Amino acid sequence: MKFPLLVSLFASVLNLSSETGYEAWLRYAPITDPAIRQRYDALPAVVVVAGDSPVLEAAREELVRGVRGCLGRILRSTVSLPPENAIVLGTFDALDRRFPGLGAAPYSTPDSFSLKTVKANGRTHLLITGPNDRGVLYGAFALLRRMAGHEPIARLDLRESPYAPVRFLNHWDNLNGTIERGYAGKSISWENDRILEDLGRVRDYARLMASVGINGCSINNVNADARVITPSYLAQVARVADVFRPWGVRLLISLDFASPRKIGGIDTFDPLDPRAVEFWGKKVDEIYRAIPDLGGFVLKADSEGRLGPSEYGRTHADAANAVARALEPHAGLLFYRGFVYNHRLDWRDPKLDRAKAAYDNFHMLDGQFADNVLIQIKNGPIDFQVREPPSPLFGGLENTSQAIELQITQEYLGQQRHLCFLVPMWKETLDFDLHVHGANTPVKQLVAGKIFHRPAGGFVGVSNVGRDTNWLGHPLAMANLYGFGRLAWNPDLGSRQIAQEWTRLTFGHEPRVVATVVDMLLASWPAYENYTGPLGAGTLTDIINIHYGPAVESSEYNGWGQWHRADAKGIGMNRTVANGTGFIGQYAPPVALKYESLKTCPDELLLFMHHAPYAHVLHSGKTVIQHIYDSHYQGADQAARFVEQWKSLEGRMDEGRYQETLARLEYQAGHARVWRDAIVSWFLKKSGIPDQLGRAGHFPHRVEAEAMELYGYSVIDITPWEAASGGRAVQVSSPGRRGSVRFRYAGPPGWQDLSVQYFDENDGASQYQLFVAGQRVDGWAANDTLPSRLPDAHTSTRHTVCGLALRPGDEIRIEAVAQGGENACLDYVEIEPCPPARRSR
Amino acid sequence: MKFPLLVSLFASVLNLSSETGYEAWLRYAPITDPAIRQRYDALPAVVVVAGDSPVLEAAREELVRGVRGCLGRILRSTVSLPPENAIVLGTFDALDRRFPGLGAAPYSTPDSFSLKTVKANGRTHLLITGPNDRGVLYGAFALLRRMAGHEPIARLDLRESPYAPVRFLNHWDNLNGTIERGYAGKSISWENDRILEDLGRVRDYARLMASVGINGCSINNVNADARVITPSYLAQVARVADVFRPWGVRLLISLDFASPRKIGGIDTFDPLDPRAVEFWGKKVDEIYRAIPDLGGFVLKADSEGRLGPSEYGRTHADAANAVARALEPHAGLLFYRGFVYNHRLDWRDPKLDRAKAAYDNFHMLDGQFADNVLIQIKNGPIDFQVREPPSPLFGGLENTSQAIELQITQEYLGQQRHLCFLVPMWKETLDFDLHVHGANTPVKQLVAGKIFHRPAGGFVGVSNVGRDTNWLGHPLAMANLYGFGRLAWNPDLGSRQIAQEWTRLTFGHEPRVVATVVDMLLASWPAYENYTGPLGAGTLTDIINIHYGPAVESSEYNGWGQWHRADAKGIGMNRTVANGTGFIGQYAPPVALKYESLKTCPDELLLFMHHAPYAHVLHSGKTVIQHIYDSHYQGADQAARFVEQWKSLEGRMDEGRYQETLARLEYQAGHARVWRDAIVSWFLKKSGIPDQLGRAGHFPHRVEAEAMELYGYSVIDITPWEAASGGRAVQVSSPGRRGSVRFRYAGPPGWQDLSVQYFDENDGASQYQLFVAGQRVDGWAANDTLPSRLPDAHTSTRHTVCGLALRPGDEIRIEAVAQGGENACLDYVEIEPCPPARRSR
Repeated sequence: MKFPLLVSLFASVLNLSSETGYEAWLRYAPITDPAIRQRYDALPAVVVVAGDSPVLEAAREELVRGVRGCLGRILRSTVSLPPENAIVLGTFDALDRRFPGLGAAPYSTPDSFSLKTVKANGRTHLLITGPNDRGVLYGAFALLRRMAGHEPIARLDLRESPYAPVRFLNHWDNLNGTIERGYAGKSISWENDRILEDLGRVRDYARLMASVGINGCSINNVNADARVITPSYLAQVARVADVFRPWGVRLLISLDFASPRKIGGIDTFDPLDPRAVEFWGKKVDEIYRAIPDLGGFVLKADSEGRLGPSEYGRTHADAANAVARALEPHAGLLFYRGFVYNHRLDWRDPKLDRAKAAYDNFHMLDGQFADNVLIQIKNGPIDFQVREPPSPLFGGLENTSQAIELQITQEYLGQQRHLCFLVPMWKETLDFDLHVHGANTPVKQLVAGKIFHRPAGGFVGVSNVGRDTNWLGHPLAMANLYGFGRLAWNPDLGSRQIAQEWTRLTFGHEPRVVATVVDMLLASWPAYENYTGPLGAGTLTDIINIHYGPAVESSEYNGWGQWHRADAKGIGMNRTVANGTGFIGQYAPPVALKYESLKTCPDELLLFMHHAPYAHVLHSGKTVIQHIYDSHYQGADQAARFVEQWKSLEGRMDEGRYQETLARLEYQAGHARVWRDAIVSWFLKKSGIPDQLGRAGHFPHRVEAEAMELYGYSVIDITPWEAASGGRAVQVSSPGRRGSVRFRYAGPPGWQDLSVQYFDENDGASQYQLFVAGQRVDGWAANDTLPSRLPDAHTSTRHTVCGLALRPGDEIRIEAVAQGGENACLDYVEIEPCPPARRSR
Repeated sequence: MKFPLLVSLFASVLNLSSETGYEAWLRYAPITDPAIRQRYDALPAVVVVAGDSPVLEAAREELVRGVRGCLGRILRSTVSLPPENAIVLGTFDALDRRFPGLGAAPYSTPDSFSLKTVKANGRTHLLITGPNDRGVLYGAFALLRRMAGHEPIARLDLRESPYAPVRFLNHWDNLNGTIERGYAGKSISWENDRILEDLGRVRDYARLMASVGINGCSINNVNADARVITPSYLAQVARVADVFRPWGVRLLISLDFASPRKIGGIDTFDPLDPRAVEFWGKKVDEIYRAIPDLGGFVLKADSEGRLGPSEYGRTHADAANAVARALEPHAGLLFYRGFVYNHRLDWRDPKLDRAKAAYDNFHMLDGQFADNVLIQIKNGPIDFQVREPPSPLFGGLENTSQAIELQITQEYLGQQRHLCFLVPMWKETLDFDLHVHGANTPVKQLVAGKIFHRPAGGFVGVSNVGRDTNWLGHPLAMANLYGFGRLAWNPDLGSRQIAQEWTRLTFGHEPRVVATVVDMLLASWPAYENYTGPLGAGTLTDIINIHYGPAVESSEYNGWGQWHRADAKGIGMNRTVANGTGFIGQYAPPVALKYESLKTCPDELLLFMHHAPYAHVLHSGKTVIQHIYDSHYQGADQAARFVEQWKSLEGRMDEGRYQETLARLEYQAGHARVWRDAIVSWFLKKSGIPDQLGRAGHFPHRVEAEAMELYGYSVIDITPWEAASGGRAVQVSSPGRRGSVRFRYAGPPGWQDLSVQYFDENDGASQYQLFVAGQRVDGWAANDTLPSRLPDAHTSTRHTVCGLALRPGDEIRIEAVAQGGENACLDYVEIEPCPPARRSR
């Protein structure tokens, strides 16, 4: 019996619980302003459904739910046209057959919808139609979005078609429930090598997907476990497909290409070996018996240690086609990932270039792939860096279908601890004209298959939502999931429009909230770029594993190929055709010429395309090195400003999301300083060129821990050195595992804010107390779960105590008790006058 | 090490967590309005403490905490006067000794405080002083209350003394952790016959007590377990005293008078037996060794089955003095409860009267009690009813000390499921002039010992807070705890002032919030009286056990003596001297004469004092019976209005407390209808006199469950009959334990609200679904924990589904699945047009 499920569903509709972010943009908040409510007075009280598929039923339920939430009215539901106005749901065919004369004008793009007010027999009906059930469902969501967005719905005549047939999500969930590059808790599908018993969250996730037109979703990691397609797993995975189905979402599975050998009982996975071909044929038939509407497979092969066709000297086309042919009778698609590169490149060779790999690997195979294969290509040639040019491979496939892979989970972009709204970044790629054959060929048209008239194509987002109540951890991060869906539906939408829609649906219509959140969203990617990675050099993060805090040299002297080649003289990858790696030559001439020349290469990609001396003068008029200094200070200031902007919203939204977001923004402001100081210090030391504004290397308000009196503490070097102020920190000496550091305050008397920079590792929860002139003024625990168990740039954390009345000569003392593997490491103390704004906030 | 404790303390100061009600009125919310903040610009940055007692340390910590919360500034703490302005804390003596010349002018009432701005040596100091440490602590809280109340603090010269020395709380906590008449979770002190390990809540409770001047607290039920004073328990109880001590709160213990026999190893508890006297002497010495500052004992003897001196033919004075003499060397007080009555009265005897018991029992013993005995007298002569005259015993003790017992826990007054602000009720009693010896002798002066110059006297509140996060269950109920403390400190404060103070401190200063909450608080007791008990007849509740929902006849035909004597002709207890019980004669003549005469007896106490025919015309001009009808309809309307008032505050306060309060108010509005219908129906049937306004007995929008088509359901009689509409309900017939009820809607088409009246017992969680014309429109579970396991007036509950588009002929169907001992009982369905306000709220 579905009863308990339904009860909980209604509870959330009625807004009995506080805002938690779980409802995301589908809150259907009550419309209380009479002037706005009036817009919906004429909404019919009856909803009629022509047909009875699960998808139509979901559309009907959602309409009832949404109208109940927004207006407090429960629509009547009937199957025949009532003697009164009605909302009529159904496909064109069904409406035509059941209610002829309503004037539903058909058209055929699958998943399209039409919202139309019609008059018939003295009644005014609102038709929600489409060529297929999914289109009708999307129409229902579109109507509700208008209503929740407070837009009028009278005399509607609205028709929308999706930009591309593929609007899919990928999840990198492991079968044990962990998520590779997931930052919001464990998998919503998997736990302990099983699909979860309770799929309530999966159902609600499917609703979210459907509401923005997402029509397919893979649920296991591309670094796939071969067991997922064995019978016992298939039965479980089919349960997820059942939950997806009413919402028009097709399930996809990530495959291990070595499956024939690992689980097939044969000793080969050579795609040309008849036994492997037979394996795939039978296995795919078996899978489709369990999941008849499976969307297809995702396949990562010959990449980052995954087995692939190279094992047998076969091509990616051989590999893809072996699986795709088995899928073909079922109309399934194979997403073959273009993210194939050699991660053991010789860093000494200036001609080698990982950026070239995707194009090099797949361009030559163009035309050899079956029609149901899509090459799934990351937006940039490297790997989801904060700034990359579009992958040239988008322009390199004319007879092969493709899809663009965008990353919603913020792997290199702050891991949802930092605010980073990605829509503007994605739009730069999607709108970028690659000038293939000199024509107007923006990436969005290429990936949608519009330029070369491909049968398939579209958009894939790597979502990695988790079990955190608000799905992605940061309350504002869901703007990226929403934005991905909206762009996949219509990449011509503007970033600001998407940000506004999302903010209104998520936080309501209070004008200051909308204006402030939209401003913050739109400023966030440029801010993150400013304090993390300059001029296209890439995110200067640790690239070996954690992909979070700064670690400038981690890119270098290894085979991973994310080199920026910074040295004492200059920085940047020379990818020119003239004397570099030749990567630029993968673009069509108009693009290549622009990048090849220092004169025309845009500043923001300068170091991606060229190696430039620090003294090189940018189009902006600044030198490269001064730009590095300026942009990092500017970015950290922007991050600090987000905190103040957010604080201006206190009392204008629910307290829960206000506080949760504030905590993340305050952390971000602190970590942006870590970034700023690390990058600026590294380049100052490396280049020896001073900051014209005198900031770099000067911290007048700072007292280094290693310069304090230490009791039970000793000095250590931090790796990388730029992760700590002065390259060093202090940690508790082992015996007793407690200690203190002390110094005398030498500044002027007055109200001061004191910040303690310490290292909050994930292998312990040390405790700190702060004393001023013998008085205990604060205490806190280093109990965050930042992604490292070492004192480094990932764990460097700021704790600020505001409003201290300091007097010259005061002893400042920090007492610490180390816990677990964490040694209560301290970096420095910074004391700054309380800003006037805070003193009288 | 106290470290983790302190961390959590600071976390709450910093307002990192959402509002939950746990902080109660000590939120110290940040002051954000610059114009308000300016008032505190001149506040010194340093706090100096003269002395080092735990109480002074608590005062200092609280000042630091409060200023940090309100202003974001951390005061410096020193022990010597700094070369700058300072807040100076200390007793008069200490200040005079340590900092002569500051001009602290001493006076002597214990617990008094003075806040004074003084100039000395070119500095401006703010002195917080008092004759004892507790006074200094109260001064610190008073300063913070001014600041949190946004009042100016410049040039202060404020001095306050408590009205009486006794300002105590009682807790009816059982050692197993349950609370007799507790409605907010289990005991904060006890669990499983032990004191809790974690006394964090007790500490925070002590802070709350201290903040309003409460200086003593008993922690075990007056129906006492003798074991509490055995050695193993004493050691535990002493831990609570340790936690109370820094907050100036003395612990008290409730005694079992039979302790000498139960735990003393002797076979008697005769208070005149030397062995019993010896027992008490040694035991009390032992107790004071464990708790040197024990406040004393609370003793309930010879009442409601408790053993007492009557066992040996001794008097209450004998009993009290036996214990009091043992207390005397330790300056301990004995609170001897005046709540002594025979609960086996012969109800057939019209001269018997429980109201007379307290006076009869204790008046004749006046002068026989030791000086450290206080008779603890409930405000009224019965037992915490919604309307009672003051107990005449307040005027009947001239040579015996007394204390008034007020009940904060809402035993008869809605059990914190109903809003009932008790300060106006308490003030009616406290301000009541008993005209003892013809003089001006208001109750407050009598209980404080001011009239007869008693050495002790004051105020005792029965608090019964529990482990619910917000202490008392209903977010607004804490106004009663606050109000009790404020009145005990100064009973001359006005109800409105107390309500305003509490609201501002608890919910902030938003003008609409303050105005609305204060209005609701002040209207709540009259509203509760209106729908529960007319004209002083008492709360017409079940009085046998549960004391919650209506049960008109439960008072009658039994020995408990809470009779209202309602019959076919009239209602009321004839307590006149002329021909009644003679109770009125216990008052001094001016009071007695007023009550004795129908001409002068106030309407609101008419039925307490007289038996009146239903046709009797009140001073208001209405008949008694019409008043009963009108007041119950008016009261239910008031309860419904509270919901609308509260809804006007949405978005103006934190969501958590908003939603929690709304849910309680909506429940209350439904239960107020249960009350209204039960009382009105009972009197309509009993009297046979119709309602002039035609409401009573007519429910045009109602369909009785027993009149519906029943499937798997059968009709049952409800006891008492007035608890159900029509006296009957339906319950699931046993097999399968599920069923449905159905009927056809016969009203006009339109937007309707449909309410289902059902019985939500505490012995199961049945589930319901509502279908309209075959469409499922709602589902809910009967999973509340109302105080009965039967379908009766305690469990009758309303579930309303708003905004249904009904059409004539619609089938309305309720499907139910019974669970546990609960039979999914249904009473009726009521369908009313959506109010226009809700349609466009």
